[in-house]
Amino acid sequence: MRCCVPHTAVWCGFAAANVPGSGSAPVRRGPRVRASALAAALALAAVPARAQQPAPATPTAATVPDTPLQMRYRAAADRLIDAALADSAAWQKMARITDTYGHRLAGSAALERALDDILASMRQDGLENVHAEPAMVPHWVRGEESAELIEPRRAPLPMLGLGGSVGTARGGITAEVLVVSSFEELTRRAADARGKIVLFDEVWQGYGRTVQYRGGAANAAARVGAVAALIRSVTPHALRTPHTGAMHYDSAGTRIPSAALTVEDAMMLHRMQDRGQRVVVHLTMGARTLPDSPSQNVMGEIRGTERPDEVVVIGGHTDSWDVGSGAMDDMGGVVVAWEAVRLMQRLGLRPRRTVRVVGWVNEENGTRGGEAYRDAHRAQLADHVLAIESDGGVFRPSGFGFTGSDSALAIVRQIGGLLRRIGADTVTNGGGGTDIGPITALGVPAMGLNDDGTRYFWYHHTNADTPDKLDPREMAQCVAAMAVMAYVVADLPEKLPRGR
Amino acid sequence: MRCCVPHTAVWCGFAAANVPGSGSAPVRRGPRVRASALAAALALAAVPARAQQPAPATPTAATVPDTPLQMRYRAAADRLIDAALADSAAWQKMARITDTYGHRLAGSAALERALDDILASMRQDGLENVHAEPAMVPHWVRGEESAELIEPRRAPLPMLGLGGSVGTARGGITAEVLVVSSFEELTRRAADARGKIVLFDEVWQGYGRTVQYRGGAANAAARVGAVAALIRSVTPHALRTPHTGAMHYDSAGTRIPSAALTVEDAMMLHRMQDRGQRVVVHLTMGARTLPDSPSQNVMGEIRGTERPDEVVVIGGHTDSWDVGSGAMDDMGGVVVAWEAVRLMQRLGLRPRRTVRVVGWVNEENGTRGGEAYRDAHRAQLADHVLAIESDGGVFRPSGFGFTGSDSALAIVRQIGGLLRRIGADTVTNGGGGTDIGPITALGVPAMGLNDDGTRYFWYHHTNADTPDKLDPREMAQCVAAMAVMAYVVADLPEKLPRGR
Repeated sequence: MRCCVPHTAVWCGFAAANVPGSGSAPVRRGPRVRASALAAALALAAVPARAQQPAPATPTAATVPDTPLQMRYRAAADRLIDAALADSAAWQKMARITDTYGHRLAGSAALERALDDILASMRQDGLENVHAEPAMVPHWVRGEESAELIEPRRAPLPMLGLGGSVGTARGGITAEVLVVSSFEELTRRAADARGKIVLFDEVWQGYGRTVQYRGGAANAAARVGAVAALIRSVTPHALRTPHTGAMHYDSAGTRIPSAALTVEDAMMLHRMQDRGQRVVVHLTMGARTLPDSPSQNVMGEIRGTERPDEVVVIGGHTDSWDVGSGAMDDMGGVVVAWEAVRLMQRLGLRPRRTVRVVGWVNEENGTRGGEAYRDAHRAQLADHVLAIESDGGVFRPSGFGFTGSDSALAIVRQIGGLLRRIGADTVTNGGGGTDIGPITALGVPAMGLNDDGTRYFWYHHTNADTPDKLDPREMAQCVAAMAVMAYVVADLPEKLPRGR
Repeated sequence: MRCCVPHTAVWCGFAAANVPGSGSAPVRRGPRVRASALAAALALAAVPARAQQPAPATPTAATVPDTPLQMRYRAAADRLIDAALADSAAWQKMARITDTYGHRLAGSAALERALDDILASMRQDGLENVHAEPAMVPHWVRGEESAELIEPRRAPLPMLGLGGSVGTARGGITAEVLVVSSFEELTRRAADARGKIVLFDEVWQGYGRTVQYRGGAANAAARVGAVAALIRSVTPHALRTPHTGAMHYDSAGTRIPSAALTVEDAMMLHRMQDRGQRVVVHLTMGARTLPDSPSQNVMGEIRGTERPDEVVVIGGHTDSWDVGSGAMDDMGGVVVAWEAVRLMQRLGLRPRRTVRVVGWVNEENGTRGGEAYRDAHRAQLADHVLAIESDGGVFRPSGFGFTGSDSALAIVRQIGGLLRRIGADTVTNGGGGTDIGPITALGVPAMGLNDDGTRYFWYHHTNADTPDKLDPREMAQCVAAMAVMAYVVADLPEKLPRGR
């Protein structure tokens, strides 16, 4: 799942509810901060003539003159952009891996095979210090599952159990359905819910809001005595497509099975209820949680020339839900970071500091990869200059969202300006990612790649998250954006400032 | 299925290939004919001051003065439009029937139950002469079916067998796949196809062209010795959604099973082949054709005041493919025609001639309803003034396509002008429908409701053809368009002219 809705700071239900620290990640919600001359001066301490330059703010017109930082890095940035746009290597790599291994839920053999492939391919690409770091991950398995409408007529209901749900007892549950539009309506109709399957038919109101039903439906329904909780899939557009994703149980409450129906069927059951018809559904879910399973974060680097222990870490997550092939969410994100490092290597653009690409594991249902990275690198986090995550689908990039000091924001906005020719020059205040949440919480400046999110939630956590949804040219633009941002931050004479 | 792509005269593969007459229906492909003063004069023979009026052509500006025809019928048209737009009755009726009975393939019990409901509901609505007329329909059943990728990795492949296909032998077929982009490529690679499953991965090029693969894949593949034929689903947009539809066998050739994969999987298998991988698929289909089954066309009327034996017949088809609930294709079409007649009845707008709403059966895989109607009414076809079909999804209407004489075209364009306030005033040259094809072939002027086809093929013949895809307001506009066109043609002092 993606962590932030593009250009907003809404964190996903899972991370907010379950991951210590990430729910309170230092995401700014305030107005954009204009870069000050002081910030520019701080940032450009080693760049000649810096004090004479105007504050960079967020230049948008093509006629704005380059700042000294931009003058210094324009040529390298253009080489990276040109190389990224020269072919469809990123798309081909993403498609090969996802076609070859399919979906990759934490705990699955397919994930481990894909990770081994990524390590071998990173070595083949000439990345340095390619290695894996262990992480224990949850191991939830879906099992056989189905839903069927029994009354007022028999019909199969396409569904997906929600990640983390318990299964039904053998033979499943057959119960009358109570359809509600919201948590509030369930509260009002609590007396009607006992012994029933509660279906939340909440109309899409944006991911940040609607995903709360995915996360919390089972708890709310269990509290009023329901035997199972169904939700309308969390999406603004559907072709009878169920969407899975993480749910979580209150530690105290009864654990009842929870699954997503399609938008279409949730609406139909609601209409049937509105017509006064009794709605009965049979639900069978074989879901269960097995003991935690060993997995790994995979990584490779281009080592820094002057300060190799200072690191810009960039990446995405290698795991996916157990549907589709996790192309958009998030092998595309892993690959654009990986290709960014490969291009630096290939072009001989070795920055002062190290750029490390990480494929974090278990973003979808645990963030254990992000936590393992934090724990393994805790002593080095002071030297983590910046963490950039791409987990928004690698569609047409618009720039980045940044969480850090105002002075650092002023600098990364100047770097963003180097991406104007591909339209990826807007750096907004506030952004990050689930996998980098644990190190963000410990003070590492964070950044998320922002892209066109128009269609992201059409495919999100479905069987339709496949390579064809991504465009080779747009992916190449994402590679360019990641490469330029990571390279320049890693090469700046002065470390990106923390604090104010 | 829809018969004509909106605003074009491309007929569907099934009808063109299998229905005597309809493939050569008199659809005009020439340039639009401008109405002449003669045509206007002919049309308005009984309308005062007709000769002094300018030729109506296709008025588009709001300032164009009404023609005498328009002056005469403006008030009635406005009453029909106002009544149609006053509520969501059409949408509610469509949703109730499709929710209650689900999909309705010819030969199914659900179809017959829905037809009985429609007859009862038409009577309840106060329609006159409500009755059914028998039609024997094909009875194809899908049976259990599945496809699985076996090499290079195991994965389920969502699929739908094509209507009319034979099944596989028990146990299914396991064979290597040859992916081609076109019939031409298969011809070039004929030597590679023997014993294989041929997959046609043709990129969507518009329905009229791409549907040829659905219709003809099995024949082309059988000719080169293939054991089964798969196609990429016929759609410009997919969420891993297979699309079914009719296929047909050459009478001489070997009959091999034929099914549609999703766009996503067709592309993936193509990529795997391009990478040099051996692709193996296991295909199981339980499809079979049972003996023809008795069914019925259902109809009701508002009887004409002066010439009740002269008829304007309007409608859509009641059957659907055995997926989704056939809301868009085509219960919506049936209902907008039905509601048009109900509104005339309710408003006391009884025209000179009879308006008959017909729910034709078996449009999807036989056109037997259209043929039965032709055969039952052969003696009355000279008094069939106009036939209007709505089989394009009842999205936002733009007007109609008309197949008939130039003089009649000039008249119906004036009637179209009465629909300008709802944007449905464009009457194009050429149009009709599959169900009215058999009577069109015998000279009855034909018309098809044109609407916004943007999303039609996203849902077409899939599990996603459900009521939510239609908008109540747009459906009401379609009711208004059908009502005004049918009412005015039925009430014109002179019969709509045939011939030139």
